[in-house]
This record gives sequence, C-alpha cells and structure tokens, in this order.
Amino acid sequence: MANTYDFGLVGLGVMGRNFILNVADNGFTAFGNDLDQEKVNALIEEGGDKSKVNADVDAAKFVASLSAPRKIMLLVPAGKVVDIVIESLLPYLDEGDIIIDGGNSFFTDTDRREAYLKEKGINFFGAGVSGGAKGARKGPSIMPGGSREAYQFVKPIFEAVSAKYKGEPCVTYLGPKSAGNYVKMVHNGIEYGLMQLTSEIYDLLKKAGNLSNQELHKTFDTWSKGRLQSFLVEITATIFDQKDDLTDGDLVDMILDKAKQKGTGKWTSQNAMDLGIPVPTIDIAVSMREISALKDERIKADALYDRPTPENVVKDSLVKKAEAALYFAFIITYAQGMHQLADASKEYGYELELGEIAKIWRAGCIIRAALLADITEAFKADAELPNLLVSPSFVSKVKETVDSARELVAYGANNGIPLPGLSNALTYFDAYTSNRLPLNLIQAQRDFFGSHTYERLDRDGIFHTEWES
Amino acid sequence: MANTYDFGLVGLGVMGRNFILNVADNGFTAFGNDLDQEKVNALIEEGGDKSKVNADVDAAKFVASLSAPRKIMLLVPAGKVVDIVIESLLPYLDEGDIIIDGGNSFFTDTDRREAYLKEKGINFFGAGVSGGAKGARKGPSIMPGGSREAYQFVKPIFEAVSAKYKGEPCVTYLGPKSAGNYVKMVHNGIEYGLMQLTSEIYDLLKKAGNLSNQELHKTFDTWSKGRLQSFLVEITATIFDQKDDLTDGDLVDMILDKAKQKGTGKWTSQNAMDLGIPVPTIDIAVSMREISALKDERIKADALYDRPTPENVVKDSLVKKAEAALYFAFIITYAQGMHQLADASKEYGYELELGEIAKIWRAGCIIRAALLADITEAFKADAELPNLLVSPSFVSKVKETVDSARELVAYGANNGIPLPGLSNALTYFDAYTSNRLPLNLIQAQRDFFGSHTYERLDRDGIFHTEWES
Repeated sequence: MANTYDFGLVGLGVMGRNFILNVADNGFTAFGNDLDQEKVNALIEEGGDKSKVNADVDAAKFVASLSAPRKIMLLVPAGKVVDIVIESLLPYLDEGDIIIDGGNSFFTDTDRREAYLKEKGINFFGAGVSGGAKGARKGPSIMPGGSREAYQFVKPIFEAVSAKYKGEPCVTYLGPKSAGNYVKMVHNGIEYGLMQLTSEIYDLLKKAGNLSNQELHKTFDTWSKGRLQSFLVEITATIFDQKDDLTDGDLVDMILDKAKQKGTGKWTSQNAMDLGIPVPTIDIAVSMREISALKDERIKADALYDRPTPENVVKDSLVKKAEAALYFAFIITYAQGMHQLADASKEYGYELELGEIAKIWRAGCIIRAALLADITEAFKADAELPNLLVSPSFVSKVKETVDSARELVAYGANNGIPLPGLSNALTYFDAYTSNRLPLNLIQAQRDFFGSHTYERLDRDGIFHTEWES
Repeated sequence: MANTYDFGLVGLGVMGRNFILNVADNGFTAFGNDLDQEKVNALIEEGGDKSKVNADVDAAKFVASLSAPRKIMLLVPAGKVVDIVIESLLPYLDEGDIIIDGGNSFFTDTDRREAYLKEKGINFFGAGVSGGAKGARKGPSIMPGGSREAYQFVKPIFEAVSAKYKGEPCVTYLGPKSAGNYVKMVHNGIEYGLMQLTSEIYDLLKKAGNLSNQELHKTFDTWSKGRLQSFLVEITATIFDQKDDLTDGDLVDMILDKAKQKGTGKWTSQNAMDLGIPVPTIDIAVSMREISALKDERIKADALYDRPTPENVVKDSLVKKAEAALYFAFIITYAQGMHQLADASKEYGYELELGEIAKIWRAGCIIRAALLADITEAFKADAELPNLLVSPSFVSKVKETVDSARELVAYGANNGIPLPGLSNALTYFDAYTSNRLPLNLIQAQRDFFGSHTYERLDRDGIFHTEWES
C-alpha cells in the first residue's frame, strides 16, 4: 500500500473531504490526513474502497503512502496552522515533493513559505480554490501559482477535478510565487462587491417597489437566465424562496443583518491602496459589512432621524432599471478587480494573463457569471487592455445600462435608501471617464499649505507658488 | 556655551527652521542640527543672536549644547531616516533624555522605536505637527504621544510655540506610545476627506452653475465666514483669486488634475479596515487621488463615452445647497475620523480623550474649523459618544443639511458630475442610521455557498441551513 497513492490531502473538514472524494471520482487514488481520528474514519467510510481512498492521523504514514513526487494539498485555516502543518510534514518529505496550500493565505505568507521550502528542494504552490463545499465536491475553480516546472505533476489531477466550462477546465497555471493566492484574493474582493450590490438591489426592490419575497424570487430567477446569469444571482433567487423551519415565515426575513467577513475583501482593498489602484466598489462593500456589524449603534441612530418615505414607482419599470443598474455595477466591479490584477502582476512579477484568469472563473467559482465569457473575449482581443471600460464590447454594454444606474442612485439619494455600492460604481465610472477632474484644486491646496508643488497643464516641470493670503 | 540650550532640533528644512525660530521667539534657546552646512548657516544667520539660536552639522556638538534632560525634536522625512538620525544621536545621549519625532511616521514604527529607546533609558515621543510651514513658524497644532512623566519637560515649550485657540494652547499630552502619530494620521485622513469634498463642490459649482473663478472666490470667501469657517475653505477662496504668473489666466485653471499623496490618508483607510471601522469618505478620497493620477487612461476613456449635459439650475439656489451639503459632508467626515480614533484608542490602549483632540485641532492645524468647537463641546457633554451623529447638537445640524446633500447627489448622478465623497457621506449616513440593512441577504449567501452560518433576529444562537437548490 505504501508509495502508491496519487494525491495527498491534509485537513479533512468539509472542503477537504469533498475535494479528496472529487479526486477519487476522477480515477486518482488519494490519501487523507487529519489530526482528528473521527474525520479520518469518516473519510475512509465515505471513500469505500481503501485502495482508492484512505486516510490516517499519522503524518509519517500519510507521507509514506504517496507516490513520488508527492503531491500534498493543504485545506486548513489560513495563518499559523499552515506553517505548523508544513513543519509536521517536512521530516518525511523528499526533494522534488510538492505542497499545495489550497486556503486563503495572505499572499506575502505564500511568498515567504515558497522561498523557505525552495531552499529545502520542496515545491510550494499557493492555489486558491473557489466554489464552496459543493464546488470542492463537484468541480471548483482552482487558481494555482508556484513553480511552472512542478505544475506538470499537479496539472492532470487539477484539470480532472476542476469545474469545466464548455469542456475547458477551470484551472490553469497562473504565475510564480503567490500569483494563485493573489488572484484568489481579488476574486474574493470582487465577490464582496457583487454581494453588496445584490443586497442593495434587494433593498431597493423591497422598499421602493414593495416586492414580496416570492416576487423577489421570481425576479432574480428571471434575471439569472439573462445577461445577469451568475451563481450569486441564482442563489439569491433560491434564498428568497427558502422557508424558515422555525417560524411560518421566509428564512431571509429572520436572518440578522450583521454581515461577517474573513478578511480577503479587506486585504483586496488594502493592497489596492498600496498599489494605488482604485477599487471603490470593493472598498465600500468592506465598509458596509463593518456598518452592518454596528447593529446596536444603528438602532440608536435610527431613532434620532426621520427617513424620507420612498416615492411611488412603477414596479415593472423599477425592476427593469434595477436589472440594468445591477449589470452596470457588476461590470464596474469586475473592471476594478481586473485593473488591480493587471497592476499587481507588474508590481509582483506574476506575469498574469488576465484572459486566462477570466477563463477559469467562467465556471466553478463564486463569481462565475455570463459576463466572464465576455471578459475572456475582451482580453483575448487585447491582452494589454488597461481597463474593461475601454473594451469596445463593454463600451456598448455600459452605454446601455448607465442611465438606469444614474436614475436609481438619484432615487436612493432622494429617498434615503442607501445604495453605496451602486453609487461608488457610478462615480468611479464618471471619474474614470473624465479627462478633467477637479483635483487641480487639491494640488493647489497641497502646494498652499505644504509646499508640495504641482504640475501644469501647459508646460512640463514642477512648480511651486507663494500663494497670497 | 555647552549644556545651555533649552531645545534641540534635527532637520533644518523649511518646517524645522520655522519650528526652531518659533521656539526662539517664545523665549527659549534652541540649537539646530543638519548634515547640510548651508542649512546650518542659514539658520544661524536668520536666528541672529547665537546665544539664542545656534546650529552645527556635528551631532556630538549638537547634543553637548543642550541642557538636561535634552529635548531633541526630529523634523526629518518619515521612514529609515528617522532610525538613522536616532542612531547618530544615541552615543551622545544620557539616560532621561527625550527624542521627539515630529514627522508623519507610521504608528507601528513609533511603537518599535519607543520600545527600543526605553531599554536605553531614552524617552521617545511621536508628535504629529500640523499647520504646514507657516504653522511651524507661527503656531502649529501639536499632537504628542509618549511617556506621560517625560511630557512635563516638553510641555512648557510645546505650549508656548503651539497655536492658541482663545488663549488655549493647541497641544496636549494625548496618550502612551504612538498615540500622537496615530492621531495625526487620522487628522490627515480627515484632511483627505475634506479636500476631496471641497474639490467636488468646486466641480459642481463650475459645471452646474457656471461659476467663474471670481464667483468661486467670493462664494468660498463668504462660506469661510459662516458655519463652514475653516482653514481649507479659506485657502480655497484664496486659490480661486490667484493669478497665474506665466499666462494671463487664473492659476487654478493651469494646474494639472493629478493629485499626489504621501501615504497618511491611505494608512488611515487601511488601518480603519483592520479595526473594522467604516470611514468611506476617507477611503474614497484616497481612491479619487488614485483615479486622478490615471490621467492618460482617463483621456482615452473619456473619448469613448458621452456625458450628460448638465441641466440648468438656479445659481443662488445651487450655491445655497452646495454650502449645506458641504457642511453635512464635513460633519460626516469628522464623525468617521473620531469613530476611528475611539476604536483605535481601545485597540491600542491609547486612552484617548476625544474632546481633548478636537480641542487641539481648533487652531493651527490644516483641518481647523468652526466645527471643531462644536465637536469639542459634543465630547465634553458625553466623553463616550459612540458617533458624532448621535450627539444632539449634531442631530440638528445634520437634519438641517441632509436634504441638500440628497438633492446634489441625485443631481450629480443624473448629470454625470462625479461626487463620490458627497455620495459616500450620504450613504454612510443613511446606512449608519438604518436599524435594518439588507445584509441579511449577504449572510444568507455566505451560509449558502460557504456554510459560514448566520444569526437570527428572533432568537440567540448560530444557525446553518441546508439550502434548497
């Protein structure tokens, strides 16, 4: 039995167990490892034939069971646990073996681990995996970064287990070092943006259009069959249809409006700021989760202010505009995320191909959407596209929908319905497409109080003025 | 001459020279140090009487000239230079001496330096200084953090040189460790927000109201005498009145609309995200500087899209609403910054008194404004105020002005004039004052695809649903 299993996996939680069963379904033999004997037993039982799926709590036995070069995936919580697991495996590994971190590790941690393991002759991959528990079982999108040479050993397994879009596997080698983790981080940042936008449109349809949960269900269901086709719109439709087991009502109405976060959206925003790339729709999605968490403060503040009573609107027209505005804002969110990836690629030497990234996001992952096929095409047509907003096919999509976004942002502002994600998508668009912005005033102010100098429109050079005062 | 000077200062750039002359004006003797002999000579010349103001390039002579405990302020660029200067002084210092970093050092650097110097018996202060070159000369706002015991030696000098608000010095001991740098960082974050808002209102008045620079000058000048009274509104008025030396026009029209940044605004946003405190008006100010920097991309994108032609508006009414909206958004920006300070105080053990901070911001610094007297009062009335928006005096100010913000945000959205700061101020307000937000949907989505669980409105506990699909 020793030295025969094709694939090893440490961390037999839901994601890990599902991933390893997926590997086995695709004809590879797989061996699991977890400190928890119960999880090990559960996998063995679910796996059936031990010659195909086996597991052990002992790291030495685990490593000894794998064929060379060993391919060991970690699906454990990001952070120190990853380092601990790596150290526990190291004594038993041989040169050329491969460790794949499948968690949401911060990209600089991945760079550190990659360099550390390279010294020991071990290949390290940071491979973002998206698709949730079901994706892990049935086919996730996988975003691996690391050694291009070592990828050949991992490739057959990843291509077999990944989601397929029209037969094409939703996995590809993305770039060196932490490229995979970085791409997954931005994937999640985009996910934050799309989720925030969806929740705002829900709020608007409910408050301005008085849509019932059943109407919301039908609306999102219809949308999910059109240009908004996407996993998040689909599950949103399902969510509005879900009954509550504990009361007579609908489950969505019973869920507390305090959104949690695990950090990847925040990291995306923080790192975008380090790069100097604007991603305001993602930023505001992070802020809104924070505001949502301040429930007690919100209740007190609410009692002190009146809110406008929403003006009546024609339901059908509202739904139509909401669909267009959501489509517009989805585009803007992808545009911001892709912009960040393009810049990060230069900054960190990832040599990312944005078209390939869009391609592997078309199925399996949380942000999969019909739009990603269009994004793939846009980058196929121009690999150096600075921003989706200047791609001809997106220019027409945006022109068709931006007026709905304008109307709804105006409606939200006038009627006290907060649409911060949609607003930020619109102001980003209006600013990014302005050849002239009023930030000449900011440069004047900075020069006025801090002698920070400024540039001029009419001639080159750096200028400073002794301002009257 | 040895051991007699009251105050030492390293870094004789504009800020340093002005600060030391300010110290001398207030009856203290001061000794400067800089590696650049010319700067040393310039100070000696400007200082006049060498027994009152002197300087030397030699660190040993510099340190030997100061009375014990030595009080040495650094006004050098943030970053490695601070460490280098500290190392260059250390061999000559005695236990109990005091080093004060007056630059915009990142707060964790200050914590590191404070701990390092404490081991050597040296007291270290991080003291933010705001007011620009003129403030340094005539009276800045000073934000010192460090050892409470050692502050007694610095206090008389800082209180003498600082700006005065109705006789009260704009300096006070803020808290341990990096409290001073942290407060200054958030001061600058607020500054970013106020500057962005001012530039948006300028854009709106120009595009929607066709105000000429002279009209803008008069408008901001009038505003600066009312509730919007503030340094930034005052200098904005002056800026619109400034003629260009190189052409026949007004200088503001010749300045390139690419705004630079030195990092403190970005740090404020990034750290707010670490704390989980929403400061979206500051975030968007950072994003807008980034978008402004993408001038070449903007020019290309502009050519691809049409922009709405702004609807006609009545100039007087526009100016009136703009004033109210700007006041509203200024309040929101201060509210966000103070909220961040309150949370950082708990997180980092600063024990900040927010009322004291507002107090020392009333004069001298860049964000000084009539509003800060009101903010001081609000925290005097309730030191534990969770957010300015729930202070009774601010509730009435906000109620008076929020409708103008609503109207202008709607106008900007409909007419393609980007008002991202104002929009974010409004959506922050609408969200923060909502007892119910639609983020229950986000929790449902997270539980759907990631089994992240959710809480309920009607009972305690953590829940997970096996969603239909």
